[in-house]
Amino acid sequence: MPIAGPVAPRTSERTTLDPLPFDAVAFTGNGMLAAWQETNAQATLAHCVAQLEASGTLDNLRIAAGQKQGEFVGFQFADSDVFKVLEAIGWEAGRGDVDALTGFVDDTVALLQAAQEEDGYLDSHFQVARPGEKLTDLRWGHELYCLGHLLQAGVAWVRTTGRRDILEIGLRFATLVDERLGAGGTDAVDGHPEVETALVEVYRLTGEKRWLDLAQRMIDLRGNQLVGPDRFGYGYFQDHAPVREVDGATGHSVRQLYLAAGVADAYVENGDDALLEALERIWADIHSSKMYVTGGLGSRHRDEAFGDPFELPPDRAYAETCAAISSVMFNWRMLLITGEGRFADEMERALYNAVATSTTPDGCNFFYSNPLQVRTHRDGEHEQAPARRVPWYDCACCPPNLARLVASLHSYAATIRDGALQLHLYESGRITLPDATATITTDYPFDGAIRIDFDAPFAHEVALRVPAWASSFALTVDGTAADLPVTDGYLRVPGGSIRSIDLTLDMPAVVREPHPHIDAVRGCVVVTRGPIVYALEQPDLPDGVVIEDVRIDADAGVTVDGTGSGSPKLRVRLAQLEPVRAGLYPVRTGGATTLVDTMDVALVPYYRWGNRGPGGMRVWLPTT
Amino acid sequence: MPIAGPVAPRTSERTTLDPLPFDAVAFTGNGMLAAWQETNAQATLAHCVAQLEASGTLDNLRIAAGQKQGEFVGFQFADSDVFKVLEAIGWEAGRGDVDALTGFVDDTVALLQAAQEEDGYLDSHFQVARPGEKLTDLRWGHELYCLGHLLQAGVAWVRTTGRRDILEIGLRFATLVDERLGAGGTDAVDGHPEVETALVEVYRLTGEKRWLDLAQRMIDLRGNQLVGPDRFGYGYFQDHAPVREVDGATGHSVRQLYLAAGVADAYVENGDDALLEALERIWADIHSSKMYVTGGLGSRHRDEAFGDPFELPPDRAYAETCAAISSVMFNWRMLLITGEGRFADEMERALYNAVATSTTPDGCNFFYSNPLQVRTHRDGEHEQAPARRVPWYDCACCPPNLARLVASLHSYAATIRDGALQLHLYESGRITLPDATATITTDYPFDGAIRIDFDAPFAHEVALRVPAWASSFALTVDGTAADLPVTDGYLRVPGGSIRSIDLTLDMPAVVREPHPHIDAVRGCVVVTRGPIVYALEQPDLPDGVVIEDVRIDADAGVTVDGTGSGSPKLRVRLAQLEPVRAGLYPVRTGGATTLVDTMDVALVPYYRWGNRGPGGMRVWLPTT
Repeated sequence: MPIAGPVAPRTSERTTLDPLPFDAVAFTGNGMLAAWQETNAQATLAHCVAQLEASGTLDNLRIAAGQKQGEFVGFQFADSDVFKVLEAIGWEAGRGDVDALTGFVDDTVALLQAAQEEDGYLDSHFQVARPGEKLTDLRWGHELYCLGHLLQAGVAWVRTTGRRDILEIGLRFATLVDERLGAGGTDAVDGHPEVETALVEVYRLTGEKRWLDLAQRMIDLRGNQLVGPDRFGYGYFQDHAPVREVDGATGHSVRQLYLAAGVADAYVENGDDALLEALERIWADIHSSKMYVTGGLGSRHRDEAFGDPFELPPDRAYAETCAAISSVMFNWRMLLITGEGRFADEMERALYNAVATSTTPDGCNFFYSNPLQVRTHRDGEHEQAPARRVPWYDCACCPPNLARLVASLHSYAATIRDGALQLHLYESGRITLPDATATITTDYPFDGAIRIDFDAPFAHEVALRVPAWASSFALTVDGTAADLPVTDGYLRVPGGSIRSIDLTLDMPAVVREPHPHIDAVRGCVVVTRGPIVYALEQPDLPDGVVIEDVRIDADAGVTVDGTGSGSPKLRVRLAQLEPVRAGLYPVRTGGATTLVDTMDVALVPYYRWGNRGPGGMRVWLPTT
Repeated sequence: MPIAGPVAPRTSERTTLDPLPFDAVAFTGNGMLAAWQETNAQATLAHCVAQLEASGTLDNLRIAAGQKQGEFVGFQFADSDVFKVLEAIGWEAGRGDVDALTGFVDDTVALLQAAQEEDGYLDSHFQVARPGEKLTDLRWGHELYCLGHLLQAGVAWVRTTGRRDILEIGLRFATLVDERLGAGGTDAVDGHPEVETALVEVYRLTGEKRWLDLAQRMIDLRGNQLVGPDRFGYGYFQDHAPVREVDGATGHSVRQLYLAAGVADAYVENGDDALLEALERIWADIHSSKMYVTGGLGSRHRDEAFGDPFELPPDRAYAETCAAISSVMFNWRMLLITGEGRFADEMERALYNAVATSTTPDGCNFFYSNPLQVRTHRDGEHEQAPARRVPWYDCACCPPNLARLVASLHSYAATIRDGALQLHLYESGRITLPDATATITTDYPFDGAIRIDFDAPFAHEVALRVPAWASSFALTVDGTAADLPVTDGYLRVPGGSIRSIDLTLDMPAVVREPHPHIDAVRGCVVVTRGPIVYALEQPDLPDGVVIEDVRIDADAGVTVDGTGSGSPKLRVRLAQLEPVRAGLYPVRTGGATTLVDTMDVALVPYYRWGNRGPGGMRVWLPTT
């Protein structure tokens, strides 16, 4: 029996692509994604476990279980951090050895069993701090959000190892929720979507229709203002309009995208074109007017919301790590449904930039928000506007979310359908197919050359994604140049007896400009190469030159040194502004800006910024 | 005995200028400021009284007084809205007839007397909702903030009418606070500064040194982290560093500026150059890097804070009305101390733009935040990001704050020192001096001609402010052209037997550009004329042209029609962008923007925007 990964549709009626078994894909070599998975396994997971203890998050459960005295600490959804770490270890268990973490898992399962009440209820915040309010404050209580994460942890462990105890705990609580809030019960929705996608996955795993029905009910009830009035308004909770009627993306970005992922899952199992059409509108709205070039989503700090179309400030970009992660999840589901490369393109953009930048190379320090600009005189480091990554947060949703994504990252690389193989993310590795094994060799995302070798002649079509950023490419099949069209974002090599494919995506450095409606970066450009967005950092500027005073000579182009192995050096021509100022709002002279010096300076991949001490950073560079 | 106005120093040792008596200045005619005062008197005050009733704010006090059953409603500082309305009526009582409001004042005084406890305590939030926590949650409780507003109301009524009952109520509470938190009591500061300036004013009125000592103690204790840890950090409360050591403006902008006003008042009475130097640093920081062109302050929505230097987004400008009001208060105090025109210039900027825009012409609808850009697809109207003015707010601090400022607005127009007269704000009116009456005739701020007539030969110097925006002017004294230098922002006409002065400030429309470090409006310009900032509004664009698609031809200049009486028409040349787009982040072409049409379009004074229904607005116009 093959091991299923994080999204495993039960029917293929409404999908175009099927996920491969979780253990059918392995990243090998030392590419960016392989290294990330390795760091996650070797460092991040244990770091998260230690932080759950140090932060008092596990103590909350011990107090709920009567094993300890004390008060609940942290946010009301702190339990979800425990569940996400359990899920991450669960996926890692399907990839390799997690012996060092098994003690934590066993202890935590025993703790959850001890804390769970007779009727199945389990939420340490309410058990300890608000025992009289269980399942009555769905707007802010996050109980179903936490349940969703518990169920996802349960699903991961059953799928990768057959271990069922976590799922059983979740199902006991889910049963109570179904009795209270299921059909015939109270009409209510959680203020933070998440349980929807989890319930569909439980249905997929167990085959019990009641969980799909409950997920569908939660989706269908949404948009009736059941969360009640709040200073943030109904849109914040995506409770302003029924899902089928929304125009686009609204409110808190993580809530919006978790909901979209759940709706996509429900659509796949239950159908209803109106749901898919709504998802397309949400996607189009985001990707035409509400997304940073890094794939970051949600610009507003105040309510962690998308904001207005084209409201994309680089400095006050909230761009929460969890929003970029949930964008990967949403795009993956849309890719499975449609088979269209635009979804994989956006998954790739978020992954290599907004998601990747959130972690230090050691895997143990994290950003919560991911700005595209930090000024020299940045107002310190703190949760919502950081200038450097920190080991943990009071609101610790992001690090465990990263851990579970990265532990399952390989499952987003390729799909299958009727024997045909589709490649979405390029990374050196091995794909075990029913009738052959494919070996991928590449230095992607730093080099565009990708080679696929089959250990036996491959009889089926192989579809290779050609990202929208790749304006030209060369394809060779079994040593012979092939001229094939790109359809829906993929080159489709017909099946036969394929032994090897070479795809070379031309990967020049590209200077991009913003849509003219993006006010906040008017007059600026960004340098990208392949899927990687680059940034300028203060440490790369000559002494005495402040990042706020430089302008890029966009006509001078970008020099790329050292392609082919690892990260190449990109260099641009900068000029320094005359630092004399005439006040905040001087009379316009109409004259040219005075430039006092020019210099050639290296850029860094955005995902590597902030690893050399404090200092200014800019993704968008003002032009001369 | 002359009536004193809102700021009445007891010593002139550390000031350069003295306020005139409150009733020595009267705006006459129908100029902008006169009309504003009239609307405030005729409409805003009664509107505020009605809203205090409708919002339940008065009921809070009735519940505290045991006259009514119910729960506290609104924010913890709701009482302060009552006090500010009382203060506003108190100043208005020094200007004219407030008979229609006397019933409200008498009833409210009786209510406050009934609600006040035996020991002097008075704060309906704590009395009704948190009786066990009185004076223990200074970080967020706002009790001293409310007390400050109560004292200011008391001071206003004593000064303008001799009515003492409101002050007596305040003094009873202040006595309790002094016993608990004064010298020898608990070391503590309020999370929201305000009581400092109020206590100094009480000292000025009563001569009782204990109130000055208490104010000084609150200032000296600040910066020791006495407010305790908070997610917003100590800087939010200006409790991060002792006042004498701060580098610049930090945190919540209204808190910062109320504190600065209180420090200025304490400096004037007690001295200590280190305090004045700190105020100069705060002022310089704000006016060199943290102020909108409208005088709006505090860009961040999340914590209503200044943000980093040059972080001045026009769309997400928080720019709370109260921050601009408190900027007027701070600048006025610095003007009295130094006599330098730069403070009057900034008072003027805030008043005619950021403050003035917050109200509809009928005086009954208000903005809380004052953005410099609203997009066509603005995400609705709500408290913190409005696209239109509304009658009241859950957090209703701004409307009553406006009412008290406007009722006393004439007292900011001129000062005296040793017989010499200084004119700061130009508005048609009358100034009664000890030895003459001056009549001012002008259409300022829409015309730069200002005439001053004395009814008797004036023997003292007359200083006339020449705003920094005025690059040229003409001065005539008694019909003869005079060539005098501008020193510290003023033309100083020597005393003798002056009968008339004509000052004509040239007032061309000016195209201004932002400091190159203000990223958010790079490539944009703003049109100003005199002190007035102009904006482009959607209703002035031809049908089918969306405000996001227009660019200004800054080289084409600005046409000014109809100067001399009322608001002239300013027209600019705009071009429309080719609406074809190549996605959010297209490859830079390096080519010129495609323009499909040009048009001449009228601008509106920023303070009049949003009075013609919903639609986009921009202060900063992108250039072609």
